[in-house]
Amino acid sequence: MARQIRMGLIGHKFMGRAHSHALRDLPMFFDIGAEPVMQTLCGLEEDLEAAARRYGWASWTHSWREVVEDPRIDAISICTPGHTHCEIAVAACRAGKHVICEKPLALTLAEARRMLEAARSAGVKHAVNFNYRKAPAVALAHQLIREGHLGRIFLFHGFYFQDWPLDPEFPHVWRMDRSVAGAGSMADKGSHLLDLARFLVGEIAEVSAATEIYVKERPSAGGTRLPVTTDDAAVFTVRFSTGALGLFATSRMAAGHKNGLGFEVQGARGSLRFDLERLNELQVYLAGEPGATEGFRTVLATSPEHPYAGAWWPPGHVLGWEHTFVHQYVDFLRAVVDDTQVRPDFEDGMKAQAVLEAIETAARNRRWIQVEA
Amino acid sequence: MARQIRMGLIGHKFMGRAHSHALRDLPMFFDIGAEPVMQTLCGLEEDLEAAARRYGWASWTHSWREVVEDPRIDAISICTPGHTHCEIAVAACRAGKHVICEKPLALTLAEARRMLEAARSAGVKHAVNFNYRKAPAVALAHQLIREGHLGRIFLFHGFYFQDWPLDPEFPHVWRMDRSVAGAGSMADKGSHLLDLARFLVGEIAEVSAATEIYVKERPSAGGTRLPVTTDDAAVFTVRFSTGALGLFATSRMAAGHKNGLGFEVQGARGSLRFDLERLNELQVYLAGEPGATEGFRTVLATSPEHPYAGAWWPPGHVLGWEHTFVHQYVDFLRAVVDDTQVRPDFEDGMKAQAVLEAIETAARNRRWIQVEA
Amino acid sequence: MARQIRMGLIGHKFMGRAHSHALRDLPMFFDIGAEPVMQTLCGLEEDLEAAARRYGWASWTHSWREVVEDPRIDAISICTPGHTHCEIAVAACRAGKHVICEKPLALTLAEARRMLEAARSAGVKHAVNFNYRKAPAVALAHQLIREGHLGRIFLFHGFYFQDWPLDPEFPHVWRMDRSVAGAGSMADKGSHLLDLARFLVGEIAEVSAATEIYVKERPSAGGTRLPVTTDDAAVFTVRFSTGALGLFATSRMAAGHKNGLGFEVQGARGSLRFDLERLNELQVYLAGEPGATEGFRTVLATSPEHPYAGAWWPPGHVLGWEHTFVHQYVDFLRAVVDDTQVRPDFEDGMKAQAVLEAIETAARNRRWIQVEA
Amino acid sequence: MARQIRMGLIGHKFMGRAHSHALRDLPMFFDIGAEPVMQTLCGLEEDLEAAARRYGWASWTHSWREVVEDPRIDAISICTPGHTHCEIAVAACRAGKHVICEKPLALTLAEARRMLEAARSAGVKHAVNFNYRKAPAVALAHQLIREGHLGRIFLFHGFYFQDWPLDPEFPHVWRMDRSVAGAGSMADKGSHLLDLARFLVGEIAEVSAATEIYVKERPSAGGTRLPVTTDDAAVFTVRFSTGALGLFATSRMAAGHKNGLGFEVQGARGSLRFDLERLNELQVYLAGEPGATEGFRTVLATSPEHPYAGAWWPPGHVLGWEHTFVHQYVDFLRAVVDDTQVRPDFEDGMKAQAVLEAIETAARNRRWIQVEA
Repeated sequence: MARQIRMGLIGHKFMGRAHSHALRDLPMFFDIGAEPVMQTLCGLEEDLEAAARRYGWASWTHSWREVVEDPRIDAISICTPGHTHCEIAVAACRAGKHVICEKPLALTLAEARRMLEAARSAGVKHAVNFNYRKAPAVALAHQLIREGHLGRIFLFHGFYFQDWPLDPEFPHVWRMDRSVAGAGSMADKGSHLLDLARFLVGEIAEVSAATEIYVKERPSAGGTRLPVTTDDAAVFTVRFSTGALGLFATSRMAAGHKNGLGFEVQGARGSLRFDLERLNELQVYLAGEPGATEGFRTVLATSPEHPYAGAWWPPGHVLGWEHTFVHQYVDFLRAVVDDTQVRPDFEDGMKAQAVLEAIETAARNRRWIQVEA
Repeated sequence: MARQIRMGLIGHKFMGRAHSHALRDLPMFFDIGAEPVMQTLCGLEEDLEAAARRYGWASWTHSWREVVEDPRIDAISICTPGHTHCEIAVAACRAGKHVICEKPLALTLAEARRMLEAARSAGVKHAVNFNYRKAPAVALAHQLIREGHLGRIFLFHGFYFQDWPLDPEFPHVWRMDRSVAGAGSMADKGSHLLDLARFLVGEIAEVSAATEIYVKERPSAGGTRLPVTTDDAAVFTVRFSTGALGLFATSRMAAGHKNGLGFEVQGARGSLRFDLERLNELQVYLAGEPGATEGFRTVLATSPEHPYAGAWWPPGHVLGWEHTFVHQYVDFLRAVVDDTQVRPDFEDGMKAQAVLEAIETAARNRRWIQVEA
Repeated sequence: MARQIRMGLIGHKFMGRAHSHALRDLPMFFDIGAEPVMQTLCGLEEDLEAAARRYGWASWTHSWREVVEDPRIDAISICTPGHTHCEIAVAACRAGKHVICEKPLALTLAEARRMLEAARSAGVKHAVNFNYRKAPAVALAHQLIREGHLGRIFLFHGFYFQDWPLDPEFPHVWRMDRSVAGAGSMADKGSHLLDLARFLVGEIAEVSAATEIYVKERPSAGGTRLPVTTDDAAVFTVRFSTGALGLFATSRMAAGHKNGLGFEVQGARGSLRFDLERLNELQVYLAGEPGATEGFRTVLATSPEHPYAGAWWPPGHVLGWEHTFVHQYVDFLRAVVDDTQVRPDFEDGMKAQAVLEAIETAARNRRWIQVEA
Repeated sequence: MARQIRMGLIGHKFMGRAHSHALRDLPMFFDIGAEPVMQTLCGLEEDLEAAARRYGWASWTHSWREVVEDPRIDAISICTPGHTHCEIAVAACRAGKHVICEKPLALTLAEARRMLEAARSAGVKHAVNFNYRKAPAVALAHQLIREGHLGRIFLFHGFYFQDWPLDPEFPHVWRMDRSVAGAGSMADKGSHLLDLARFLVGEIAEVSAATEIYVKERPSAGGTRLPVTTDDAAVFTVRFSTGALGLFATSRMAAGHKNGLGFEVQGARGSLRFDLERLNELQVYLAGEPGATEGFRTVLATSPEHPYAGAWWPPGHVLGWEHTFVHQYVDFLRAVVDDTQVRPDFEDGMKAQAVLEAIETAARNRRWIQVEA
């Protein structure tokens, strides 16, 4: 019999919907000895009750503290804006709940460390939802590297491009305000890239960076123009602790890219390429094959041999973006019931934050900066 | 308030799971004035109860007649093997249930006609689940053609390739037995292609065809070798009633293809290309643009401007194969509550069957054959 | 020391230029014991002398008979319109010249047979310039199949699309007149496809076909509208003598395709794909590899391991369309000096013609037709 | 009548062959009022005479001074190793010859400046062979940007990957010796990227960089192992004087890449992508089109509307890598006969060198460095 894990979800907008969907889908496809129970949805806005009904939550509340203190609840998922993560997560850990938190884990490295410490002290399971690790093609990339098929890694090349505010008359939104959002494309998109780089290559030792705001002012609702104070784009280079090099670009002003995350990893014995807009594919090059037929292979990661994929449909039936959330919960709930570790966890979230802060410092100081250990 | 439509689902294996999943997902994303209630799951095998619980059905039964006669049930979904469709569908129509049926609609044209007649006499809604019409990229193709962006259509080029029994020692399964399966790749895969051709171009007037069995015998469970009596592959050409030409290939022995359905449509003013393994993309060429920058565009059909896509996630967040089933139910349930027509319906299923039969005759008689009106 | 082969070239327009260029390029890159000498260029039009100078021919003449009878000349290349091939080739063979002839070899099967007989009687080398065999990626495809990497071939899928007269006001040209051109896209483009199919799979046993003229009349220079009497598009299916199936489409009204020849070959152990617009690439799938990393490989056929490629530049330096003509001459001249056989030869040209005639008959008679042995 | 330009070519290996080929091909395709005469080939090695005959040079010599002083010669092409460029070019300019020089222009910025000054003083035409500017697809990119189709440029993303010494037992060659080669992948490949960035975006104001040697020692012919002293790979980021950002990677240890140069340019109104392994294609995204059909277009740059392409073959007939050299000579010789400016010239070569030196300094000093004006 699967053990029931009663969940509370804090946040009910875009991410809240993606998480609710994942919790509904999971039991249909994965036998993991755990079954999530959708207990309480928490949010601030008026349409909370409608969302709770629609998504299948048993109850709802406007108070996250109520969720944290509810003795029926085993685990809490945090999908609120970044500046609230720390307070909620620490309280949840102290209340003995397992916690899964949206990325980026926190707005500052100090917060991230507090969260990690709280989770460790409480002995609860903790995860951060860098969901792209959980795409079968990306998990396959990790597996191939871990098994040595690429040899020593030489170079990681990542980019994350969108173009939603390309029009200079696109209005000023909260993501453009440094006091609320912390940083712009560098943090919002860069945190995903840095997590993937750490997942596939290892720790980042030092960084250099530059950022730019292309559109300096944008129209506000009130009819005035407000200054944009977060970066539209960033470029950064890194050196991993192994000596591998890395380069990264993030932009929200990249014409033609809707959700264009991609990377290439090059190693002594092979290379891999991934593009989120072709989520189910991994390009794989393995050196040492007969010269006449060597080349990058387009691997469709939908077969039983591929991570997570066997639980779904027969080979060739492609998965969508939201399936990465299901896989994240599979790993999280499995860790809860099996008392094992889930990755990425708060330590991963904290380390990504440490790199982000080093990048900000590097951009400001115009020099290479060591990432704090 | 959304009207509740109480559903019965007959069949609980691969397709049963895909349909159950669609019914669960639908209310989270689509406001259509209808809400499916997952009332009864019906199947023959022992794991039915477990499946019913897992997928969220309120009750279960081994008797399809019970479902058909259940006065609480408004609509019935048929996911059983093809030779049972006719009997169940006719009974369901007579009982006043709306019916959605898996493809191919029936094993013979005569059956398909009986089903259509039963549905029409009963005045119920009827649909056949040619689900690839419901991929946003394919629905976009239809919309572009309907709006005249391609001009008169000249040529349709479709193929559907898989390779699951490529190994000659892959065992003999029911799909290889003519007495059970009717035909092989030609019908199983060809029916999807013919439906897409009819959806995008129009009625098919005449056909020519050839089929082949590459592996004549395969090992059976009993240790003997059984003859394969359904086609491994088929090629067929058609002329549409408009004068457009069509060509098609289907194969279950197409090395390297897991679920490789694709098509190209060429018209007087443009061309379109689709590949199911890149489900979210449509290649679009529009003639008459400045010569220096004309070319096929890779359209990522994930934006609010694209059919069905706006209900899901922000642009660039790709959908998976199973979403086509959700969209099929959106159209079906909307037709039920709004008393409008849903397409593809039993008439579409019947017409695809008429073309399939003409193809079989053409292959046997080695000549072009008119499709029965 | 390389032996000098003195060449005469008949025809100085598009193909004449491509052949002249090939003869100039060849000695810079290939050591084959033969060196072509550009002796005489022959053509009908006034700009012949200028062309001869520009392309590097030592002399020129308006009379093809003069070339054929010139005792200095060893070999003759025929680049004139199809209806003149037979007469020139037969005369050249009788004069003891080696002959290389543009495709299609002749307008009728009877002519093609006469040409083959003349060449055989004279004991000269004879070649037909189905140049796409000579692209390194296509020659690699042939090599992989010959070496058994694909196993028994099941299916060949070829298409050749252009769109130059897509505009219905594009004028009536000679290719649209049956009395001059013989057939339309079916022969002009289809002959290339049929040659590739024969090259890669083997002899074609029987055929079925349909053709269409989408624009029935076009404006002439005189201001009137002339009827179009050659096919705009054709679809045909074949059965090879091995039992493999084939399907083909040709069109000059395929919006968005400039010179879009492509094919896929599927066998018991692998598949190959080629697209002329990506001339240097071959997609290669080999079955039996570890499931986690199997997939189509993009092989860039520019390495010493690839046919012809090693003579040019280092790996990764792509070749252009006209290099196929250089390779054709490499094979032709090597056969001359080594007294070996060159392929494709007049027999290949004749057999392609036999298939084309069967296709015409099949289209007219609306039934499958055996290809004459 | 075309004016004859008598050429001397210094260097007869890989580049010498590419240049000789370009000079042979040019008059067959381009009417530019200039006709190159292949006068003298110069080289050091024994096979020089054979090469001269093979490539079509009228004479040959082992002394570059002889070429420079030959009064018959109008223009000199320098294809020797980088450390000899300055001396030869300065002497040639002083002798009143027009000069075209291989890239990189010189080993140091000081040399490059001397060369530019010599050319300007002598009033001769001077060009540097950054040949990738001359690919039709790249020239099209430039044209689209210049005409404003992309709006203000935000970001340039370039990479150049090869893998020839991937095997750690690949021998030590001169490119791995800092005293001979100056730098490794950063200069050899980076100079191409920097030239493309300057061509498409404009001047580079400041840089940051890191380099790495992955294989520290390699076997020498003598049986010992020699230290590798030039970078295997480099990553660098730049800020253009317009505020645009740039990021770059170069590597000779990039598994699976044979000659993988690529770039993406993103602007306020569109984006472009190019990949040298698909030399004839440019991916073009133009913002502001109807949302349902917007996307990157695959433009095949082989039509009369595309730079250089109309002189060759009909649309869809792809060009090879060596055609870029033909186009380089077209521009150079046209400048000679028309007394106009050719680009890229020695100033472009010098400016690329200035950026390279800044990159070296940046990598050494671990900070952002201003490029010397």
